[in-house]
Amino acid sequence: MSKLWGGRFAQSPEEWVDEFNASIGFDQQLVLEDLQGSVAHVTMLGECGILASDEVEEILGGLAFLKEKAEKNELTYSVANEDIHLNLEHLLIQQIGQVGGKLHTGRSRNDQVATDMHLYLKKRVEEICQLIRSVQKAILKQAEQHVETVAPGYTHLQRAQPISFAHHLLAYFWMLERDHERFEDSMKRIDLSPLGAGALAGTTFPIDRNRSAELLGFSAIYENSMDAVSDRDFIIEFLSNASMTVMHLSRFSEEMIIWSSQEFQFIELADAFSTGSSIMPQKKNPDMAELVRGKTGRVYGHLLSLLTVLKGLPLAYNKDMQEDKEGMFDTAHTLMGSLKIFAGMIDTMKVNTERLNKAVNEDFSNATELADYLAAKGVPFREAHEIVGKLVLVCIGQGIYLKDLPLGTLQEASNVIEDDIYTILEPFQAVKRRESAGGTGFSQVKKQLGKAKEKISASSSVQ
Amino acid sequence: MSKLWGGRFAQSPEEWVDEFNASIGFDQQLVLEDLQGSVAHVTMLGECGILASDEVEEILGGLAFLKEKAEKNELTYSVANEDIHLNLEHLLIQQIGQVGGKLHTGRSRNDQVATDMHLYLKKRVEEICQLIRSVQKAILKQAEQHVETVAPGYTHLQRAQPISFAHHLLAYFWMLERDHERFEDSMKRIDLSPLGAGALAGTTFPIDRNRSAELLGFSAIYENSMDAVSDRDFIIEFLSNASMTVMHLSRFSEEMIIWSSQEFQFIELADAFSTGSSIMPQKKNPDMAELVRGKTGRVYGHLLSLLTVLKGLPLAYNKDMQEDKEGMFDTAHTLMGSLKIFAGMIDTMKVNTERLNKAVNEDFSNATELADYLAAKGVPFREAHEIVGKLVLVCIGQGIYLKDLPLGTLQEASNVIEDDIYTILEPFQAVKRRESAGGTGFSQVKKQLGKAKEKISASSSVQ
Amino acid sequence: MSKLWGGRFAQSPEEWVDEFNASIGFDQQLVLEDLQGSVAHVTMLGECGILASDEVEEILGGLAFLKEKAEKNELTYSVANEDIHLNLEHLLIQQIGQVGGKLHTGRSRNDQVATDMHLYLKKRVEEICQLIRSVQKAILKQAEQHVETVAPGYTHLQRAQPISFAHHLLAYFWMLERDHERFEDSMKRIDLSPLGAGALAGTTFPIDRNRSAELLGFSAIYENSMDAVSDRDFIIEFLSNASMTVMHLSRFSEEMIIWSSQEFQFIELADAFSTGSSIMPQKKNPDMAELVRGKTGRVYGHLLSLLTVLKGLPLAYNKDMQEDKEGMFDTAHTLMGSLKIFAGMIDTMKVNTERLNKAVNEDFSNATELADYLAAKGVPFREAHEIVGKLVLVCIGQGIYLKDLPLGTLQEASNVIEDDIYTILEPFQAVKRRESAGGTGFSQVKKQLGKAKEKISASSSVQ
Amino acid sequence: MSKLWGGRFAQSPEEWVDEFNASIGFDQQLVLEDLQGSVAHVTMLGECGILASDEVEEILGGLAFLKEKAEKNELTYSVANEDIHLNLEHLLIQQIGQVGGKLHTGRSRNDQVATDMHLYLKKRVEEICQLIRSVQKAILKQAEQHVETVAPGYTHLQRAQPISFAHHLLAYFWMLERDHERFEDSMKRIDLSPLGAGALAGTTFPIDRNRSAELLGFSAIYENSMDAVSDRDFIIEFLSNASMTVMHLSRFSEEMIIWSSQEFQFIELADAFSTGSSIMPQKKNPDMAELVRGKTGRVYGHLLSLLTVLKGLPLAYNKDMQEDKEGMFDTAHTLMGSLKIFAGMIDTMKVNTERLNKAVNEDFSNATELADYLAAKGVPFREAHEIVGKLVLVCIGQGIYLKDLPLGTLQEASNVIEDDIYTILEPFQAVKRRESAGGTGFSQVKKQLGKAKEKISASSSVQ
Repeated sequence: MSKLWGGRFAQSPEEWVDEFNASIGFDQQLVLEDLQGSVAHVTMLGECGILASDEVEEILGGLAFLKEKAEKNELTYSVANEDIHLNLEHLLIQQIGQVGGKLHTGRSRNDQVATDMHLYLKKRVEEICQLIRSVQKAILKQAEQHVETVAPGYTHLQRAQPISFAHHLLAYFWMLERDHERFEDSMKRIDLSPLGAGALAGTTFPIDRNRSAELLGFSAIYENSMDAVSDRDFIIEFLSNASMTVMHLSRFSEEMIIWSSQEFQFIELADAFSTGSSIMPQKKNPDMAELVRGKTGRVYGHLLSLLTVLKGLPLAYNKDMQEDKEGMFDTAHTLMGSLKIFAGMIDTMKVNTERLNKAVNEDFSNATELADYLAAKGVPFREAHEIVGKLVLVCIGQGIYLKDLPLGTLQEASNVIEDDIYTILEPFQAVKRRESAGGTGFSQVKKQLGKAKEKISASSSVQ
Repeated sequence: MSKLWGGRFAQSPEEWVDEFNASIGFDQQLVLEDLQGSVAHVTMLGECGILASDEVEEILGGLAFLKEKAEKNELTYSVANEDIHLNLEHLLIQQIGQVGGKLHTGRSRNDQVATDMHLYLKKRVEEICQLIRSVQKAILKQAEQHVETVAPGYTHLQRAQPISFAHHLLAYFWMLERDHERFEDSMKRIDLSPLGAGALAGTTFPIDRNRSAELLGFSAIYENSMDAVSDRDFIIEFLSNASMTVMHLSRFSEEMIIWSSQEFQFIELADAFSTGSSIMPQKKNPDMAELVRGKTGRVYGHLLSLLTVLKGLPLAYNKDMQEDKEGMFDTAHTLMGSLKIFAGMIDTMKVNTERLNKAVNEDFSNATELADYLAAKGVPFREAHEIVGKLVLVCIGQGIYLKDLPLGTLQEASNVIEDDIYTILEPFQAVKRRESAGGTGFSQVKKQLGKAKEKISASSSVQ
Repeated sequence: MSKLWGGRFAQSPEEWVDEFNASIGFDQQLVLEDLQGSVAHVTMLGECGILASDEVEEILGGLAFLKEKAEKNELTYSVANEDIHLNLEHLLIQQIGQVGGKLHTGRSRNDQVATDMHLYLKKRVEEICQLIRSVQKAILKQAEQHVETVAPGYTHLQRAQPISFAHHLLAYFWMLERDHERFEDSMKRIDLSPLGAGALAGTTFPIDRNRSAELLGFSAIYENSMDAVSDRDFIIEFLSNASMTVMHLSRFSEEMIIWSSQEFQFIELADAFSTGSSIMPQKKNPDMAELVRGKTGRVYGHLLSLLTVLKGLPLAYNKDMQEDKEGMFDTAHTLMGSLKIFAGMIDTMKVNTERLNKAVNEDFSNATELADYLAAKGVPFREAHEIVGKLVLVCIGQGIYLKDLPLGTLQEASNVIEDDIYTILEPFQAVKRRESAGGTGFSQVKKQLGKAKEKISASSSVQ
Repeated sequence: MSKLWGGRFAQSPEEWVDEFNASIGFDQQLVLEDLQGSVAHVTMLGECGILASDEVEEILGGLAFLKEKAEKNELTYSVANEDIHLNLEHLLIQQIGQVGGKLHTGRSRNDQVATDMHLYLKKRVEEICQLIRSVQKAILKQAEQHVETVAPGYTHLQRAQPISFAHHLLAYFWMLERDHERFEDSMKRIDLSPLGAGALAGTTFPIDRNRSAELLGFSAIYENSMDAVSDRDFIIEFLSNASMTVMHLSRFSEEMIIWSSQEFQFIELADAFSTGSSIMPQKKNPDMAELVRGKTGRVYGHLLSLLTVLKGLPLAYNKDMQEDKEGMFDTAHTLMGSLKIFAGMIDTMKVNTERLNKAVNEDFSNATELADYLAAKGVPFREAHEIVGKLVLVCIGQGIYLKDLPLGTLQEASNVIEDDIYTILEPFQAVKRRESAGGTGFSQVKKQLGKAKEKISASSSVQ
């Protein structure tokens, strides 16, 4: 098959080299963006008098035809035409004849592919922002129901202090809020048009880059044509932001998995988000949470991959950059899938409040209460800490908890202790009293819920 | 040695376990931030009536003393005291007695260390933003001198089209501009106070988190105490941003190394930024550029390291998080060093304009001119491309360039070609005519320079 | 659709969850390995008397039928059946009825999928070892032709000392030799049967794991069933080895790209391994070399990805492990493609010997000769180095080379210099005289060639 | 300060550039290896008649003096002398005068530093192999005590089937066995001498590379001098192997952390391997296990760092390679520390056998027993699976376990069930009956223990 760029070549590449070289296998995902870019480009060429209006009309007609076919999945691509750009140009010329060749006036595949990817990523980031919101809403729904559900709070996976279960869930709200913020920040650098940068140097045709940018809905254009065609920062930034988000989801997944174990039983995941075993009939596995946790690796991998590709690459375009696409597609797909799963999984999970309540009443997570009590009565904190540590040892020895110690024993340990200590030691009281800003005290958690709702409703999302 | 948290323990850890566990070896870099945090905390405790004013005074005195010693590098730390926090508390108690123990009231090491790192990173990011500016200034200085220096522009490391050398240099300006922007965006998420979040749940003491945040110069506080102590996103975001910046520097380094080769000789690096060989007396090696390129690996590594650490970590604090520091310190150090080196290296490099000029006159990088010329005269671009490709083959066969072809030969190839083609083929003209927005045309490059200068002067930098 | 493991479940998962969960989209690549494993398993079950011989016959018949269909690509899979294992079981039961359900006796998907992957990777590594050999052979072919082709040797991309071009090429032979060795070493850990390990604990059926291993051609079995089903080390080791190999290819690619530049022109790549530009008709781009260099990122990414997935995963099987496949498939595919490309690219490249010869005669890469000459005559090496450094500066000042300096000037610099120095300074002589073992001296290079050929012919490859 | 390689340079680098450039800050860790290499080199130079015997004697005397000082930590290095090689040469010349300059005859820093690193890594890998053995021994010790300790076996962190606790522990034995094997395999590629490869091309001096290799205890020499000085594969392979090992340790750590939680309480870690909280007096945190898990990130990071550095690097030495050391040092240090911690932590952990026993008697992990029972009686496995799944649902509804179901109910579900089912359902019996090779049946576990011990005693370790 004759190559569009083949004039200079004496010998035709073998087929398997073609296959190695070609990107059509994956960049066909950009078909609609590529057509959209061509429509804007040819419209602008017409407006600038570079193409005659009948030429423009013919080309637009051909592009409209291809778009219709593309939407019905009826286009046939060929590896010999390498990529989505040459394939579409080839199909266009087949459809409308040699005038189709004029579409490429004042444009190169280098700015064309960059334009496609900016268009693609802009849409995906908007969708991702919305999906983040849907996970946040599911968190808020559960949190609202569990403000006064007292649960063990952990550090080092050891029970530390009792907390409001809503407080725990809301921690993830704020992580996702930062993710949302970062994706929004990144829009400035995605929402830019490289179109018209040419191969690397701009063009001698009197094109209007601002006009084609406007037609594509971009807010601004790249200021430097070499930068425009060789910049892949916006993809790396996307991969970084996605890595952070999947990392958050992996943390939440880990907790869901642990909470679903027979030993914890803090939550029960809906059947719809669990699967069974081919061999063990009793199993109900938190597969979705595990899968999301596992997918962290994939997204990290894509980030490292593109960072590696770009390392030490001279200006401007190099073929290495063809490797920018698959990781971007897969990351968008993975992240959107994971967020969707999470929204459903959180929304439908059942919180085992009885179990949580039992847990906090049978441990030493109220030890800090006692230490703070002592400190509030003037015992230097380090001394208080020492005293309580020893009382814990006494309890462990006797198989009891702090609340079970007789007042006498407590007063022996420190004479500032009075009868009110038993109220202090109640987990519900312990949580209630943590009224420092952002703390787990119920009134604070309610305030926090209010702020969280504001964030979501104030959000004009990415426009 | 008796541990401050040892009350509950029957058996003392062996020394080599202590060493594995301890972070004092590296977190002593946070000594000033830790003291700053303590000053704010104790001041707030006093204002809120949690500590008596004489206690506050005593503690502040002790902290001032420690700060003086720290600045003179006169503090002695011990591995048995694990980390900078316990070391300083221990030294404080040594200095002012048991009242020192009250400093820790309403605070945990978990919120304390997070506060230290927010303080640390805020300073570093401000410095990095300034260093980015200094590299941008060096680029601008060189670019201003080379607007009309015509040089080969490359894609695939093959000569593609002639460009303004300033245009090439300015591509890096815009990369760094995005880096600067990203670091500024990240400030929102760094400039937050976790202080007062306690171990994970807040505290029962009536502390004022907004007050301590204000004393530390933070713009806001974390809204959720569990998030406050377990969030390391701001460090990952820093490492992501740093990775992008070193990636840019690695690309620039690669070009400097290639340009410095005997085969290219486009630039000469100053002796101050080159080194020699222990065995080959003639060598002048671009060591600094190579080293910066090599340091990309280090920064990428730190990013992946922390992403790995956080993957699947349940709330709230886990000891794994101690691994967040060394990579952050080393990345800040590496990035600041690399930027400093780059500013000097660019500022002092000599551009070999003669060599660049000779290069563009002896190649086929004006082939696009001919194709565009044909297209402008109505030849469909794909045909034009084919015609020029064949003419290039003819030239290669004869060992000449396009400008050396007689008019007859050109007209045989396409009868639209006229005598004016020889001007069109001149590299200087080729560059001059690329006047599309952001293109390499001289007037466009001058406009671009203007915008670049505005960016720098408009920048209120990170406040 | 009713699930095979659905007995315990009250509610059916929604379709989009199914899709997120399912692996059939990619694990269908294991269809032949899965059938192969089933044939061995059922054969063994029959031999051990666990299934009746007519049952075995029926199942084997069904499996043979499925294999035939699979080879013709005529099997239809469904997402509802999750993975290749349940799909095949489902198809088997459709084909031969309920007796098909007995195939899963004494087996779980956990050991089944592990078996598939061991079978898959064993084949791929064998193929990769052969492809490495073909690249090595192409190197040897070129090296044999260029033993006495003198070329500049570089450090820091600066000319260092003249070398035999064959010597340079052979450096890559040895890198690939180590790669081959590592892949062979890894075979020990790939060539192991997990079949019969069950879900995690083995089985109560009196199966013979050694027999099914033998039927599959495995050398040994896993000694611990929990390890057998949760081990993915062999895939990580494969990804590590592949990362090393693509790293080597990226280094070689970088050199090919630099050597193909107009400035170097040391080699010309065959048209079949180059491509053109859609806009610049003169371009001949080393796209294949760039693409191979770019693919380094992809393989590194897959390595990091799986390392991340496995980090902190408790025993035994977790759903996260489903993420082990795509990276493995893509790495095998990428590496085999890259090696194939490389073999062809090296085999067909033309070395520009004239250009290389001209290069070494017009530089200072013979400076070490002069220093060594002085050292051999008793001047301490550091002094010799100093003397030559100054002579180089003199030459640069006058635009000449060391061989152009009159004897008088040389003797002024050091009185041990005699007339024979001019022979010493000839690049051909300089190379010839480097006769230390493994050095670039021609006779040494010939010896090296001999050893390299031995390596290849001695290699029984991976059996 | 005057540079040893400064003859050619007109201008002296500024101090801060020196600091960026210098490696002495970290490569001083190679001081003993560097001296060892010099002793071998100079001895060989003497034996080959390149240096006079009195020169050799003087230099050896000087080197011995420096070694003595180095061992006492009494050498003072300077940044101006860049690295350990120039620093030592400088100190040698200070000590014995200009004859010291002859040490560098026929050697370059390029082969010198490579030699140092091969020597360094050979020692570290030997030590790591021994430390792996010590962890394996601790596992064996615990395993021997817990062959008949029945514990829940997990998949998806859900109870799957009861297992022998020894079996679970031994899974880690085999992972470490593969690690050991890989480190041993890598020795072939570490135990090679690059010494005498010179800067890149070998040398004209009649050196004997095999002799210096022999003096250093290396088994062979590099066959190609360019490969010898630019090869860092052996370090990457080390980092890959270390990544695998820390990944294994991270999995084991995760389990220890989960097992130590109040909810599981399967083990208790010794106080010596736990730490407390500065604020919560009751806490006993599995800090060591968390820290080891966290250090996974660091080692992965170092691997990716060096892979990134080497990507696309042309031959031969480039300054980027200086970045090879810190990651190698830190990885060796981290891995050795983690292994040491692990050996102690496993050795001293207490297994809570009562708790494990209680666990397996109160769950559905015997469901597979019932399914296998049905299958053994001729019910197709898929039907059996379905039947048991429904019985599990019945039990959950009534808050009982399978063993609590009356025979009538069981027989209603399937009429092949007989009275012997109650024995079958006992966890101890369930484990005992899993006698397939490598299964968890007690006799199999004992066999496995025997094989494991053989592995350790047969191991001649790395010599």
